[in-house]
Amino acid sequence: MSKKLRLGMIGGGKGAFIGAIHRIAAQIDSEYELVCGAFSSNPDVSLESGKELGLNPARCYASFVELFEKEKLLPENERMQVVSIVTPNHVHFEPAKLAMQSGFHVILDKPMAFSLAEAKILKSVAEETGQRFCLTHTYTGYPMVKEAKQQIAAGKLGVITKIYVEYPQGWLSKLEESGDNKQAAWRTDPSKSGKGGCLGDIGTHAFNLAEYISGLKVTQINAAINTVVEGRKLDDDATVLLKFDNGASGILFATQVAAGEENNIKIRVYGQKGGLEWQQDDANSLVMKWIDQPRQVLRTGGAYLGNFAKHNTRTPGGHPEGYLEAFANLYRNFALTIQAELKQETPTEEMLDFTGVDDGVRGMAFIEQAIASGESNQKWMDFVV
Amino acid sequence: MSKKLRLGMIGGGKGAFIGAIHRIAAQIDSEYELVCGAFSSNPDVSLESGKELGLNPARCYASFVELFEKEKLLPENERMQVVSIVTPNHVHFEPAKLAMQSGFHVILDKPMAFSLAEAKILKSVAEETGQRFCLTHTYTGYPMVKEAKQQIAAGKLGVITKIYVEYPQGWLSKLEESGDNKQAAWRTDPSKSGKGGCLGDIGTHAFNLAEYISGLKVTQINAAINTVVEGRKLDDDATVLLKFDNGASGILFATQVAAGEENNIKIRVYGQKGGLEWQQDDANSLVMKWIDQPRQVLRTGGAYLGNFAKHNTRTPGGHPEGYLEAFANLYRNFALTIQAELKQETPTEEMLDFTGVDDGVRGMAFIEQAIASGESNQKWMDFVV
Amino acid sequence: MSKKLRLGMIGGGKGAFIGAIHRIAAQIDSEYELVCGAFSSNPDVSLESGKELGLNPARCYASFVELFEKEKLLPENERMQVVSIVTPNHVHFEPAKLAMQSGFHVILDKPMAFSLAEAKILKSVAEETGQRFCLTHTYTGYPMVKEAKQQIAAGKLGVITKIYVEYPQGWLSKLEESGDNKQAAWRTDPSKSGKGGCLGDIGTHAFNLAEYISGLKVTQINAAINTVVEGRKLDDDATVLLKFDNGASGILFATQVAAGEENNIKIRVYGQKGGLEWQQDDANSLVMKWIDQPRQVLRTGGAYLGNFAKHNTRTPGGHPEGYLEAFANLYRNFALTIQAELKQETPTEEMLDFTGVDDGVRGMAFIEQAIASGESNQKWMDFVV
Amino acid sequence: MSKKLRLGMIGGGKGAFIGAIHRIAAQIDSEYELVCGAFSSNPDVSLESGKELGLNPARCYASFVELFEKEKLLPENERMQVVSIVTPNHVHFEPAKLAMQSGFHVILDKPMAFSLAEAKILKSVAEETGQRFCLTHTYTGYPMVKEAKQQIAAGKLGVITKIYVEYPQGWLSKLEESGDNKQAAWRTDPSKSGKGGCLGDIGTHAFNLAEYISGLKVTQINAAINTVVEGRKLDDDATVLLKFDNGASGILFATQVAAGEENNIKIRVYGQKGGLEWQQDDANSLVMKWIDQPRQVLRTGGAYLGNFAKHNTRTPGGHPEGYLEAFANLYRNFALTIQAELKQETPTEEMLDFTGVDDGVRGMAFIEQAIASGESNQKWMDFVV
Repeated sequence: MSKKLRLGMIGGGKGAFIGAIHRIAAQIDSEYELVCGAFSSNPDVSLESGKELGLNPARCYASFVELFEKEKLLPENERMQVVSIVTPNHVHFEPAKLAMQSGFHVILDKPMAFSLAEAKILKSVAEETGQRFCLTHTYTGYPMVKEAKQQIAAGKLGVITKIYVEYPQGWLSKLEESGDNKQAAWRTDPSKSGKGGCLGDIGTHAFNLAEYISGLKVTQINAAINTVVEGRKLDDDATVLLKFDNGASGILFATQVAAGEENNIKIRVYGQKGGLEWQQDDANSLVMKWIDQPRQVLRTGGAYLGNFAKHNTRTPGGHPEGYLEAFANLYRNFALTIQAELKQETPTEEMLDFTGVDDGVRGMAFIEQAIASGESNQKWMDFVV
Repeated sequence: MSKKLRLGMIGGGKGAFIGAIHRIAAQIDSEYELVCGAFSSNPDVSLESGKELGLNPARCYASFVELFEKEKLLPENERMQVVSIVTPNHVHFEPAKLAMQSGFHVILDKPMAFSLAEAKILKSVAEETGQRFCLTHTYTGYPMVKEAKQQIAAGKLGVITKIYVEYPQGWLSKLEESGDNKQAAWRTDPSKSGKGGCLGDIGTHAFNLAEYISGLKVTQINAAINTVVEGRKLDDDATVLLKFDNGASGILFATQVAAGEENNIKIRVYGQKGGLEWQQDDANSLVMKWIDQPRQVLRTGGAYLGNFAKHNTRTPGGHPEGYLEAFANLYRNFALTIQAELKQETPTEEMLDFTGVDDGVRGMAFIEQAIASGESNQKWMDFVV
Repeated sequence: MSKKLRLGMIGGGKGAFIGAIHRIAAQIDSEYELVCGAFSSNPDVSLESGKELGLNPARCYASFVELFEKEKLLPENERMQVVSIVTPNHVHFEPAKLAMQSGFHVILDKPMAFSLAEAKILKSVAEETGQRFCLTHTYTGYPMVKEAKQQIAAGKLGVITKIYVEYPQGWLSKLEESGDNKQAAWRTDPSKSGKGGCLGDIGTHAFNLAEYISGLKVTQINAAINTVVEGRKLDDDATVLLKFDNGASGILFATQVAAGEENNIKIRVYGQKGGLEWQQDDANSLVMKWIDQPRQVLRTGGAYLGNFAKHNTRTPGGHPEGYLEAFANLYRNFALTIQAELKQETPTEEMLDFTGVDDGVRGMAFIEQAIASGESNQKWMDFVV
Repeated sequence: MSKKLRLGMIGGGKGAFIGAIHRIAAQIDSEYELVCGAFSSNPDVSLESGKELGLNPARCYASFVELFEKEKLLPENERMQVVSIVTPNHVHFEPAKLAMQSGFHVILDKPMAFSLAEAKILKSVAEETGQRFCLTHTYTGYPMVKEAKQQIAAGKLGVITKIYVEYPQGWLSKLEESGDNKQAAWRTDPSKSGKGGCLGDIGTHAFNLAEYISGLKVTQINAAINTVVEGRKLDDDATVLLKFDNGASGILFATQVAAGEENNIKIRVYGQKGGLEWQQDDANSLVMKWIDQPRQVLRTGGAYLGNFAKHNTRTPGGHPEGYLEAFANLYRNFALTIQAELKQETPTEEMLDFTGVDDGVRGMAFIEQAIASGESNQKWMDFVV
């Protein structure tokens, strides 16, 4: 018998982008077997998508409601154990809530929900049901991001004073949503995306990365939120000045109108002893900078790395691991945690290292409060969750 | 029913490096399902490895001979269709030959065999049996390598005049094989690796990449082959001057004693109109250089790329794809070819774009003739296959 | 007879940093000959410094007042024509004013003065006297900065929407001024540096670079100004959100507590058609990014560059020109302008391309208003000069 | 009185490239004052060039013979002390020899002469006359090249095993000499350039850099020398396999037909403990690579650098110094040596760190023997001087 976790999927039917990414992430490390899904709100598309994926047609459901109902009735050793929800933001809350209440662990694409209120409810449900919950903040899955976090936690940089995180994209430099770009369409549609456009799509990643790596929490914000492209219904450009709970300050910017930029999320953190820099375009390098010593370039696969980086790497140094492997690390750690608990074992700290409900709630708070700050004449607003 | 190809594996048991890589490559794109294997020459290890992988114990065989015998007896819709052979070099020839003669398609780790003579026989067997054969020259799987090949084929650089390919590693800077480094042990052991050490392990990759990208064939060589680390039984450092069939010349170097280097295979090709440069450390960029125009940086995912690069990419621009995805591209194209043929369709040029028997035979010729050249006082030797 | 302009210097005696830089900048292109100076407020140091520089002791003056008095009395073909003022900020105004009133052209190290009020007076004096005035915003002297400016002016990026400029340094991460670091001492001393610490020292460079390259003017600011290192008397860290006169927005940050950073001033500008990026650490490259075309890397010395970049380059492509050459470009253009006018010719646009009084006044306004904004609870303040 | 050395120049008249570079190099650090010259074989051009440089017309000579004759007659405190010879290769020997025999120190552009025989005579003359002699191998002037040399000399890399040096240019990818490109014309003309084209122009730089940094001497070569562009009279592409006196081996390549390349000379050296890499395009960085530790990036201006790097730097870290500063370091060290000796002092090791007669003789031997090797069927030839 396979030890693989049985995975279901909501959304991710034919033509969807992120659904295919989730499936690859689930498969890379042989920890999951896709067994069922409700791949589309259109039952025909769901069935066709599932069949293309080689699924039993009986387990290609017409809706997530049906999925949970039917799967619950299957024998324990057959039924789905984890569900991945990869729908647009307005279809996060209901399926995630119902999934946990139906006894399934949940992997949910970010941002967590349509509103902060929904996110808080999801957190409660997770706590009440005891189901495991993973929010896929992909960039936390990179080995060198984990190394950065561990170096800071170990005090290598001293007290942190400055954090700069940026996420420039250029793909919405024009009014793409006026054409047939499906990705652009829902992400710029308030009825599907929620209050935040750029803020929700990529701003939350930047926010999460800053808190994840630094171990600090944002306490105050001062935001400038723009809709640069005429005719767009949501923000496409955000700058948020940050203050952190240890007194550090920083800048977050996320923009989708930096024409010609791809997806190079980047973070720099400085402390009293030194600084570090990581960016996705050179994802396997972590640059450590020192006041009076040569800068160092730590590399994925290096023998000198900490346990977190090593745990999240598949290949020796010099074999680039990328976005899909980072994504897969979230899936894998989530699986290892669940498998350990199925065996009544305590998951290790490496297994438990995946972003979850608290990240999700804070991310939703970030969207809403950044927008509120952007609309306000008040310079600094407390960031509260 | 799943459309996945049923895959078996020879070698790749617990603790093996490249076996795990092959499995990931096979899984990323959902084109294969691992159904059986002879994972080790030790039957207990084979069984245990297979069980860990969730296989039916009845299909975890004690030897590759048993694997072929037993699988042949299974119903057509159950039995293995493709076998991956991921053993050390001295166990390439027999299983690959027997596989094809038993009616299975073969994916074989490079170099093709223990000797050129063996490789030529494998080529004959492939031709006689009509089985498909893929030799995993991973670096040809990168989207930007494919773009480079297509740009050159389209004449963008003009007549090619110079090719520089290099593959520096540092992991054998010390006598690692004297300790418990299994990878170092077999790769430096002539009874397992064959005549070439560095030449076979990485030199063949560099040789193949140069011919693959340029579309040219090497016709003459002038080699300096060294064993730098005292006590080592095979070469660990190779430089080979090259002449190509169109009159171009070049340099190939591969070394495993460049202390501190990881695995940054790199190629530069120059023609009368311009040049290009690709290196694994920045795998998603292809630099095009022009005589009187600004250099350009082409990037994986770019809308301006050719059909080959696009066919071999999973994510939008700025989501780094790495070594495992490059490896998976070989598996995927091989699967698409077989699936097309199973449906009596003609595979497209994109599907047929995987390295195979001819690459393998030329690679073995390269090993043997580079060694011969290195030992000779003759400056230039014809390169013949 | 030498056509060199006769140069005097105020400040820059033994041990000073920026004085030596100015002298190199003046000498590289043979446009100036240093003939006199008041190198220190200590007459002995001034004399000794001048003698070390090979000057006639009679022209090594005890004070700038004496310098102007005595030089005015010399025959026209002997006396100083241009004076470089390289003293700390509190000794900018008086000598610059007196210099122009005494009939000398002025090169002045930035920031322009101790206060905005002083700067405005200097501007008036320049206009009244007709003397030429150059403020050494060094970074505008780089060929690829000039190319960036020209590309934007030509509309290559379309309407500009976003500007990110940053200037991270780490050398004041500790309380360096508590020791014997002379550079740190005066720059963090309000009685010598003025109201701004980091803002004056490097923030003004970033501000000027953004306006210079974009051709836009800042109209509103929202600043967060910090003194990160305990015990420091001036700001060492500044973030200023910007709005520009065409509706574009941006971020400026300058910090001297980014431990481990050197001096990598960097700017990114985005428009509706594309973006560009320049940073001092790769000063001879200008990256142009396009929505649907490969990015381009323009390089100093390229045949395809515009007239401004070419005018400001000495060597063919691939011979790196650096900070001193950028600095020298300011000196050279200033000299060419003066020489043209001495010949009753109209200076070309390339000659007139040096930063001057208006840059200086705006820079001082930036310091004062950024501090005011930092201290205010008002979110956005109009930036007025 | 100025302490500047009085400099004369042979060649470098209007329109010449390298003459202007030499003058900048001489001026940057105020160590020289140009007092005379024979700037062209055409007396009118010489006079006009000298006048443009602000020289006394009486010291703008019609020939180098006249220059030496007349300058010798001047009072000791007026006459030229050092002469820079910046003519094409066929006019190196005579003026250099006569200069030394006339009592002048010599700075000579590389390669040293038209033939090895001439170079050996110049060496003898230098030794007999006791005049100081500097051959301008510019790349040895970079601070981080000096740091590399010092790190290796200190044993940081252990025993050196591999050296890779490359010098790719693309400016002669077409038959430029058929047009009005003066630089191309003489460099590809055997009557002016000597036996080597690419070998003499840039191959000697690469050869010198390898020996300078490593402290090793080449003992055997195996060369492939090409004329890639049809109609060209000299080599434009050279690859030379190297063996060194400690048993290390390496590759040198220099080419002028790598279309699209600028001038990025690059060297990598590996030893038993680690490796290092330096390239002109990132001239202020020296990458040190270690077997089991993170790689380090040493930077010009770093407090942790050795005395040689520090001695050859003008600005703090992060202010890029480039080609002209590297060139100036040769001039400056040469001046410091002469000035020390004028004061009867012993020059320090930092002062004496400029390339000279031995480098020149070895460079000429490299040109001649690389060509001989290229024409020979003998694989390895001893490299003898």
